[in-house]
Amino acid sequence: MPLSSETPAAKVKPKETGAALLSAFGRARATVPGNPLSPDEVAKTHAFWRACNYLALGMIYLKANPLLREPLKPEHIKERLLGHWGTSPGLAFIYTHLNRVIRREDVDMIFMAGPGHGAPGVLGPVYLEGSYSEIYPDKSEDEEGLLRFFKQFSFPGGIGSHCTPETPGSIHEGGELGYVLSHACGAAFDNPDLIVSAVVGDGESETGPLATSWHINKFLNPVRDGAVLPILHLNGYKINNPTLWARVSHEELEAFLRGTGWTPYFVEGSDPDTMHQAMAATLDQCVADIREAQREARSSGKAFRPRWPMIVLRTPKGWTCPGDVDGHKLEGSWRAHQVPLADVKKNPDRLQHLEAWMHSYRPEELFDATGAIRAELKALAPTGLRRMGANPHANGGNVKKALRMPDFREYGIKVEKPGTTEAENCRPLGVFLRDVMKENMHNFRVFGPDETTSNKLQAIYETSRKLWLEETFPEDADGGELAPDGRVVEMLSEHTLEGMLEGYLLTGRHGFFSTYEAFAHVIDSMFNQHAKWLTICNQLPWRAEVASLNLLITSTVWRQDHNGFTHQDPGFLDVVLNKSATVTRIYLPPDVNSLLSVANHCLKSEGYVNVIVSDKQMHLQYLSMDAAVTHCTKGIGIWPQASNDQGEVPDVVIASAGDIPTKEALAAVDLLRQEFADLKIRFVNVVDLFKLQPDTEHPHGLSDKDFDSLFTIDKPIIFAFHGYPWLIHRLTYRRTNHRNLHVRGYKEKGNINTPLELAIQNQIDRFTLAMDVINRVPRLQATGAHAKEKFRNLQIKCINYAHEYGVDLPEARDWKWPY
Amino acid sequence: MPLSSETPAAKVKPKETGAALLSAFGRARATVPGNPLSPDEVAKTHAFWRACNYLALGMIYLKANPLLREPLKPEHIKERLLGHWGTSPGLAFIYTHLNRVIRREDVDMIFMAGPGHGAPGVLGPVYLEGSYSEIYPDKSEDEEGLLRFFKQFSFPGGIGSHCTPETPGSIHEGGELGYVLSHACGAAFDNPDLIVSAVVGDGESETGPLATSWHINKFLNPVRDGAVLPILHLNGYKINNPTLWARVSHEELEAFLRGTGWTPYFVEGSDPDTMHQAMAATLDQCVADIREAQREARSSGKAFRPRWPMIVLRTPKGWTCPGDVDGHKLEGSWRAHQVPLADVKKNPDRLQHLEAWMHSYRPEELFDATGAIRAELKALAPTGLRRMGANPHANGGNVKKALRMPDFREYGIKVEKPGTTEAENCRPLGVFLRDVMKENMHNFRVFGPDETTSNKLQAIYETSRKLWLEETFPEDADGGELAPDGRVVEMLSEHTLEGMLEGYLLTGRHGFFSTYEAFAHVIDSMFNQHAKWLTICNQLPWRAEVASLNLLITSTVWRQDHNGFTHQDPGFLDVVLNKSATVTRIYLPPDVNSLLSVANHCLKSEGYVNVIVSDKQMHLQYLSMDAAVTHCTKGIGIWPQASNDQGEVPDVVIASAGDIPTKEALAAVDLLRQEFADLKIRFVNVVDLFKLQPDTEHPHGLSDKDFDSLFTIDKPIIFAFHGYPWLIHRLTYRRTNHRNLHVRGYKEKGNINTPLELAIQNQIDRFTLAMDVINRVPRLQATGAHAKEKFRNLQIKCINYAHEYGVDLPEARDWKWPY
Repeated sequence: MPLSSETPAAKVKPKETGAALLSAFGRARATVPGNPLSPDEVAKTHAFWRACNYLALGMIYLKANPLLREPLKPEHIKERLLGHWGTSPGLAFIYTHLNRVIRREDVDMIFMAGPGHGAPGVLGPVYLEGSYSEIYPDKSEDEEGLLRFFKQFSFPGGIGSHCTPETPGSIHEGGELGYVLSHACGAAFDNPDLIVSAVVGDGESETGPLATSWHINKFLNPVRDGAVLPILHLNGYKINNPTLWARVSHEELEAFLRGTGWTPYFVEGSDPDTMHQAMAATLDQCVADIREAQREARSSGKAFRPRWPMIVLRTPKGWTCPGDVDGHKLEGSWRAHQVPLADVKKNPDRLQHLEAWMHSYRPEELFDATGAIRAELKALAPTGLRRMGANPHANGGNVKKALRMPDFREYGIKVEKPGTTEAENCRPLGVFLRDVMKENMHNFRVFGPDETTSNKLQAIYETSRKLWLEETFPEDADGGELAPDGRVVEMLSEHTLEGMLEGYLLTGRHGFFSTYEAFAHVIDSMFNQHAKWLTICNQLPWRAEVASLNLLITSTVWRQDHNGFTHQDPGFLDVVLNKSATVTRIYLPPDVNSLLSVANHCLKSEGYVNVIVSDKQMHLQYLSMDAAVTHCTKGIGIWPQASNDQGEVPDVVIASAGDIPTKEALAAVDLLRQEFADLKIRFVNVVDLFKLQPDTEHPHGLSDKDFDSLFTIDKPIIFAFHGYPWLIHRLTYRRTNHRNLHVRGYKEKGNINTPLELAIQNQIDRFTLAMDVINRVPRLQATGAHAKEKFRNLQIKCINYAHEYGVDLPEARDWKWPY
Repeated sequence: MPLSSETPAAKVKPKETGAALLSAFGRARATVPGNPLSPDEVAKTHAFWRACNYLALGMIYLKANPLLREPLKPEHIKERLLGHWGTSPGLAFIYTHLNRVIRREDVDMIFMAGPGHGAPGVLGPVYLEGSYSEIYPDKSEDEEGLLRFFKQFSFPGGIGSHCTPETPGSIHEGGELGYVLSHACGAAFDNPDLIVSAVVGDGESETGPLATSWHINKFLNPVRDGAVLPILHLNGYKINNPTLWARVSHEELEAFLRGTGWTPYFVEGSDPDTMHQAMAATLDQCVADIREAQREARSSGKAFRPRWPMIVLRTPKGWTCPGDVDGHKLEGSWRAHQVPLADVKKNPDRLQHLEAWMHSYRPEELFDATGAIRAELKALAPTGLRRMGANPHANGGNVKKALRMPDFREYGIKVEKPGTTEAENCRPLGVFLRDVMKENMHNFRVFGPDETTSNKLQAIYETSRKLWLEETFPEDADGGELAPDGRVVEMLSEHTLEGMLEGYLLTGRHGFFSTYEAFAHVIDSMFNQHAKWLTICNQLPWRAEVASLNLLITSTVWRQDHNGFTHQDPGFLDVVLNKSATVTRIYLPPDVNSLLSVANHCLKSEGYVNVIVSDKQMHLQYLSMDAAVTHCTKGIGIWPQASNDQGEVPDVVIASAGDIPTKEALAAVDLLRQEFADLKIRFVNVVDLFKLQPDTEHPHGLSDKDFDSLFTIDKPIIFAFHGYPWLIHRLTYRRTNHRNLHVRGYKEKGNINTPLELAIQNQIDRFTLAMDVINRVPRLQATGAHAKEKFRNLQIKCINYAHEYGVDLPEARDWKWPY
């Protein structure tokens, strides 16, 4: 099997089609010539890879006899065969070769497996290098540990077939496809010595998020950042279909990759020995290219966009498995995707087939008497923290440094009398972020899809500009705010930004992402996956806490003058609420000072996804800084200045969450007060949304006692909510007074409207809220001799007020005194 | 201004960078040589475009003096300036030139504006061609109508700045970016004579969904389908940033586009006259290329993948606006994105600046005395149904043909005794879809992200295979199911498939999309936008109803043996519920026959998004076909065989929605029945989820009376739900008996588990449900002398049963008789 260096890999001919290569694999063809490995190195490298492949098979099939030291019997086979072989040999091949280059060049490298169900190809080498057993001592490096390692795989209570958080060295699960390059880019930011190897599955490469994330090369600054080495693994098939990229011509594929700004090196074939030579030569070239670009940039201090190297690795799907089964092609076919040989427990022929296949890796040459990998093979893996399963960057909480924080109180605005001045809520936050940035120029970044200025956060550019490595024009100097060392990352892809931020956080840094509310839904699924990742991490004692993902949702539903209906969607919160209470936090600060207080809290927190909802436009200001801090610390509270129930049970509780709803609710209080002065109103404002949920459901939840003391046990509650109204019911359905809770919120009514019109259409406006109160407080009838007359006065006021703002309020004319 | 044909457009030099072109615009450079327009044609074409640009400005600025027949005064200017100029001239330029080619070649063409806020550039030519006034007669083709047309734009109660449903000829709003190519592809499917012009914004081109949708050329069959003509409009800037593609070298951009399989023709410059020549020559070339590819394929009957033509149109942002304002660059800068000259109402200099700019289009030469466009210019637009604002394909409901439907009852399975046989729920649906396909081989398609077989729908391939136009290998013949005329569209991009399906439906056809439940979240935002589109269409009498979007959500949360936590997410339903009740429908058929009945109903329906949740695995069967039809028609009902409350008020209502929850709930009934034979249980199953909501909220909702008669007004209800449990509370919080409703569902607890374990972790299992009943029905204490003993028996049974399935049920040992 070992091959001498006289049999070099052939050169890829640019005009050849994928088909010509893929349908008839054989000796390697590669862009980079050369045979850097000695025959001994080829043999050992191949042995290490055989060991990986053997382990992958063991994980899928075996519950006993882990080293095949006795003939394979049905009782050695797992009851249910689960797991995926298809992509595993390719991943293990890459991992094995990366080990070589890490050792050779002392590279600081982490590994990300983009292809779905790639765990068997990663867990194998992680186990062989010893990092698995260090974290999970019961999966020891001996026969007994090996068996446990096999049995837990895809087994109830065990580990999954993706690179889940349980996988040492993984910060990218690959359960949902498409995010490997953006995660890799985030990990490489501000880690100048790191190379992130990112394997892109050819199935994954069809997803939108992956397709646009080839652009990451326009965001990696060779002076300051590490590098990403993408390895597009074309094994040709998804679950049941060929992949698109595996069936285009070599010309098209190469043009595409060059067009996205990479320099692709091809390694194609199936013959292991020539493939080992080709892969080794290519990886040496890639690392040299990366080092050269970095050297050039760092020695000159001038950042530029290198045409970074990448690899296209074309191998058969299920590489090294049997060529066929029952006359159907297996290796190099979609049939190798999952469990290539089924029914092995009951079918003796199949069992024999499996046994022969497993023996083809010659485990007896790979493991010693105790069942550990032989020392000369283990020596092929790096040691200590250079092992990719033990690299500190991949357990980022351990390398994280706390943010140095300026005092957020100094960025507040003066509010002498609540509700009398206006300010843009987001603008001072921009100033605060500017100074947070100033103090943390190596581990803090701000992300936004071309909306940082639109979202009024542009003060941040005074500290650090928009990251821009492409060409600039003379006119960019006038307000373009572009710089190659900018730390504000803008691209019109919420997917890419979210992925970059996740990668940045998971490697121990901090960040802040602002985006338009309606389009937060673009990353619903990414949020879900990140929340799930954090949830599982919480169950793993060895995973250190990373910084929270801070998401500012702005340009909100209630002011979309010309954007209209498409931009009206406050439903991201409903998605967030479904995720584990251990990792989700939602805040709706109503004004500048409360937003600053909340943002400060979020930036300092760990392990959460913090969602902050705040509109960017001019809004009334309510809270002085001291009041804001007190209010936000409690998360929910009575606003005494808007309440007149001092010490007594009120007639009604009016509650609000969000800026516009708070304004309308306060205006309703004002309208009511003018006519019904002795109506006892308690005004409650909610900043921390989870306060509404019982404390048994969410750690922030109020106890029933506290909830009842705020919301009473039997008085009507009129709640003006920023989002869809039923969300509040979902949080509060267990509360004593839920039957008297009446919520107003966005009800999917809108088009091109003024804010007041929009409020009216969705019945969250001051008039509707006032009417809601009148309709629900029978005592109003007794609030004076002329209650009905007061009601008429109110009615006229409402109509006139609306008219003044150009809004017709026809139904107001039909309001009837309800008693 | 008119230019003679002696001044040809220059040839694009491949090595030149974007920067060289964009920073210093001037005479056109183009890939295609030639000057096909006579000087008179240039002059007229230019005049038509000037009229478009004038209208765009009028929409943004004017509320009086629409034809500038008197000097411009502050009172002519709108109070608030909203709308986007930046992309408009480019869109109008394209539209104007498409008009020419439509007339010249009698092309059947529709137009899609991908760039955000493009409406002013589209509404202008749609108004000029007369199709606007036909639909909206008050926006007549005279001065008065023109003024109304101006005033409504971005005005409260008027129309938005995207190509909203109110826009004649639009089936693509462009409010959320990224979907123009997939929409265009869907529209072109099975419309062999149609060319869909799809303008891709360079901002939009950074999104993931757009980036992968360049692949649509691998799905357009030149024999059977129409063509998509992408026009990448590089105007260089987003809101505040340069775009990535506008700043790479010509070489990279061209390589990228060729790599994605297109033949790009470049048209670059700012000088109008040479640009008119270049664009005309290029469009002639593109239409010729398209026709040639189609001729070749159709004459031979052999489908292949042409390297379809596309256009890269590089023009300045805000083209033809003033070059600068207050010393800052305006034309060709991000400053031209929205309203280029602000403050015109109060600042007399600005007003004058605006007036001069508007006069630069010489409106007096464009409109006649009545205010209509001059006849010789109007003659440049096509007439009748060839006008892109009047093309029937863009109001698809009018060209829709009803599906021919086989009798779904014939695809059912025999269910003699409920709960005794098992079947894979999705498999017979595949057979049914196969025959629906057979009857509708020109207007029905099935979509799935590489999961059609995984989702057990593969019978469909017997009628039509997977659409595949790339290379095939010999081994594909063995089970590959690939064919160039396949009608099953598979690509690993939920975005692209959803976009194709939307485009297909909006042009009057029918379709069915199946996808993994957890990853339906990938298209949350697309669903939102489509639901919003349908909601607005319902308010427009001229929009004919299109077929519903049918989405089968499968591979559900409750069975994810090795996929694990990442694949457990039933939250798409929460997203659906937020959208308008007029367009949303959700079904959870529990077995084969009910799934068939529901699918049949959905395929025949119009105007909705139908979401069907059904797992693909083996499940118990409950309903005979007759019973299924009756049950699904009602949408909710008592299952008498599982109930023993005949004619009486029960002790408890046990309810379920979804396959696994129904199984567990029925098993709980069985467990309870064994020990507490006289406990009166009513079993209610919900197929149509919106039945739970009040009829005031959703047209499917039960009246309170009907709800109360099913769920009682005071008995405990134990509800086993497929999704997140609080969703049921959200639907029912207004119901009389809501306080006694106890819901079990998925609570974000999971990893690698057996279905029973997963159910137990989330407390939706039979044991927990039985305990829930015992804990809530005090009467149980009186159900016999030995109630406590019966409870002990039940406890032992539960523990033993769980043990039998390999699940430990430790908490069962702690169960206490609660009375």
